[in-house]
Amino acid sequence: MNKILECVPNFSEGRDKEKLERIVDEVRKQEGIKLLDYSMDKDHNRSVVTFVGEPDQVIETAFNACKKAAELIDLRTHKGEHPRMGATDVIPLIPIKNISMQECVEYSKKLAKRIGEELNIPVILYEKSASRPEREDLAVIRKGEFEGMFEKLKQEEFKPDFGPDKPHESAGVTAVGARMPLIAFNVNLNTNNLDIAKKIAKAVRGKSGGFKYCKALGFELKERNIVQVSMNMVDYTKTPLYRVFQLIENEANRYGVNVIGSEIVGLVPMNALVDTADYFLKLEDFSYDRVLENRIYGD
Amino acid sequence: MNKILECVPNFSEGRDKEKLERIVDEVRKQEGIKLLDYSMDKDHNRSVVTFVGEPDQVIETAFNACKKAAELIDLRTHKGEHPRMGATDVIPLIPIKNISMQECVEYSKKLAKRIGEELNIPVILYEKSASRPEREDLAVIRKGEFEGMFEKLKQEEFKPDFGPDKPHESAGVTAVGARMPLIAFNVNLNTNNLDIAKKIAKAVRGKSGGFKYCKALGFELKERNIVQVSMNMVDYTKTPLYRVFQLIENEANRYGVNVIGSEIVGLVPMNALVDTADYFLKLEDFSYDRVLENRIYGD
Repeated sequence: MNKILECVPNFSEGRDKEKLERIVDEVRKQEGIKLLDYSMDKDHNRSVVTFVGEPDQVIETAFNACKKAAELIDLRTHKGEHPRMGATDVIPLIPIKNISMQECVEYSKKLAKRIGEELNIPVILYEKSASRPEREDLAVIRKGEFEGMFEKLKQEEFKPDFGPDKPHESAGVTAVGARMPLIAFNVNLNTNNLDIAKKIAKAVRGKSGGFKYCKALGFELKERNIVQVSMNMVDYTKTPLYRVFQLIENEANRYGVNVIGSEIVGLVPMNALVDTADYFLKLEDFSYDRVLENRIYGD
Repeated sequence: MNKILECVPNFSEGRDKEKLERIVDEVRKQEGIKLLDYSMDKDHNRSVVTFVGEPDQVIETAFNACKKAAELIDLRTHKGEHPRMGATDVIPLIPIKNISMQECVEYSKKLAKRIGEELNIPVILYEKSASRPEREDLAVIRKGEFEGMFEKLKQEEFKPDFGPDKPHESAGVTAVGARMPLIAFNVNLNTNNLDIAKKIAKAVRGKSGGFKYCKALGFELKERNIVQVSMNMVDYTKTPLYRVFQLIENEANRYGVNVIGSEIVGLVPMNALVDTADYFLKLEDFSYDRVLENRIYGD
C-alpha cells in the first residue's frame, strides 16, 4: 500500500445484526480494503465500522456502504440514546499514511458529491472539510436530529454542501469530513468523589481553558467505586497523551488523590504511543523511522 | 507477508565501499526481501546489513551474501579494531512476526548446514541455536579471532557444528544463530565523573547482579563533557527499557546526578516502545492489537 486513508462511518442501526452485516459486507467485498473493526451499540442503536485502504477504494467503499444503509435503515422509525440525523449519520476520513489532511479534504468532497447526487441524500461537510467555521462541530450540525432537519436545512447557515436542500425522507442527512485520528483515553482515580473528576476534566479540556485538542468529562465507575476523567484526544500530535496524563496526575495530587490506571478505548495510532515512550525515556534525536516496523512496512 | 524473519549479518569489510555494495546487491536482487539498513565502520573494518522477509527467502539471501563475502574478503590481510573470525563473521536470525524462536533455530541450522557443505566454511551455532551451553556467547567462540581459529577448532569444545573441521583459508569461521532483537540503548548523565557511569553500569547489568538481559558499560562522551551508561538490551520482553531507565535514574540520584537524555542506536521494535508507553501511562488491559498499525498490517 502506498497512501492509506481510514474511514469510520457511523450507522443508525445497533440492534438488527443482519442489517449491519449486510452493510459491513459492502466493506468486506471490496478488494484492497481492510476491515479493522465494527461494533454495535444496542442502547445507542448505532454501529461504528472502521476500515482502511487506498483512498479511491475507500471512497468507493464508503459510498457503497452508505447506499446500502439508505436501503435498509428508516430514520422515521429509529429510536436510540445517541443523537442522529441520518441512516449513515457521519463519515469521517482520517489520514493514516503518506496522505495529507488537505488530500483527505479533497476525498471527502468527492464522496460527499456522490452521496448527494447519486443517492439524493443531503450532505454537510464538517471538521477540516467544513465550508464555514460554524459547521466544523458535528454536534452543532446535528442539533435537532433527524426530526428537526426538515426545518433546519431551510436556514442559509445549514444549507447542504451537496445533494437536495431537504432531508431524504427515510435516510435523513449525512455529515462527511476529514479529521485527525481520535483517541478515546480515560484516566481512573482512587476516589469515588465525582466532584474531583469533574474539576480535573475542566482543568484539562480545551473548552474551559485546558489543552486545545482535549475534550473531557468526569464520570463515576459505579461497579469499581471510583471516578474517571474520560477524554477524546482529537489531535495527539498537538496535545499529546503524556502531557494530559501528567497534568491529571498533578491535579489529582492537589486533592490528595492518585491516578490508579488509564485505558485506551478502541484503536490508537502507533505514533501516539511512540511519542509517549520518547517523552518518558527522554530520548535525544529520535525519529519514527527508527522503529523497525516503519522500515518493514514503509515505502 | 505472513512470517517475518530478520537477518543482520556482519561482514569483515568496512573500508572498500565497492565490495560491500556487491555483497548488499545479493540482498537487493532477492525478490520479497526488504533491505532495511546497512552501514560501514572504517575503524572496525566491518559492516552490518539488516534485511527482513519470509524465512526461506531470508535463508537463501543470507547464503548468497555469505558466498559473495567469501569470494571478496580475505581474512589473511584483514585488519580492524573489532574482533572477527570470518569474512561473514556472524549471522543472527531474529523473530519479528508470526514466527517462534524455535522456528528461528531450525532456520539457523538450515543456513549453517548450507554454508558448511556448499561453501566449505566451518560454522558454529551460537545463542539460542548453540549445541552446547558454553557456545551461547559469541565472544567466547570468537576469542583468539581468525588467526587463533586454526588451533581452537581442534578442541572438542569448539568443533564446528557444520562444515570442515578447520577454518576456510581466507573466509575463516562463521557463527550462525537465532536470538531476540537487540536494542542499543544509552543513557546520558549530567556529570563528567566516569566513575559514576561505571558504578551505575555495574548496578544494572546482569553479569554483576543487575537485570539479566542487560549488558552495560560506562563511557565518557568527551565532546559533551558528560558520561553515559551504554547498554545492549538483549531481551526487551523480559528486561524492559523502562525498568532499566528508572533504575538508572534512581542510582544517579544517589550520587546527586540526573539523567539528561537517552538514545536508541539503530532500530527498535515497536513493541519495546509500546510497552514503555503502557507502563508510564499505567494502561489497564492494553494489548498490542489495539495499535492501529497492527490491525492494518496484521494477518
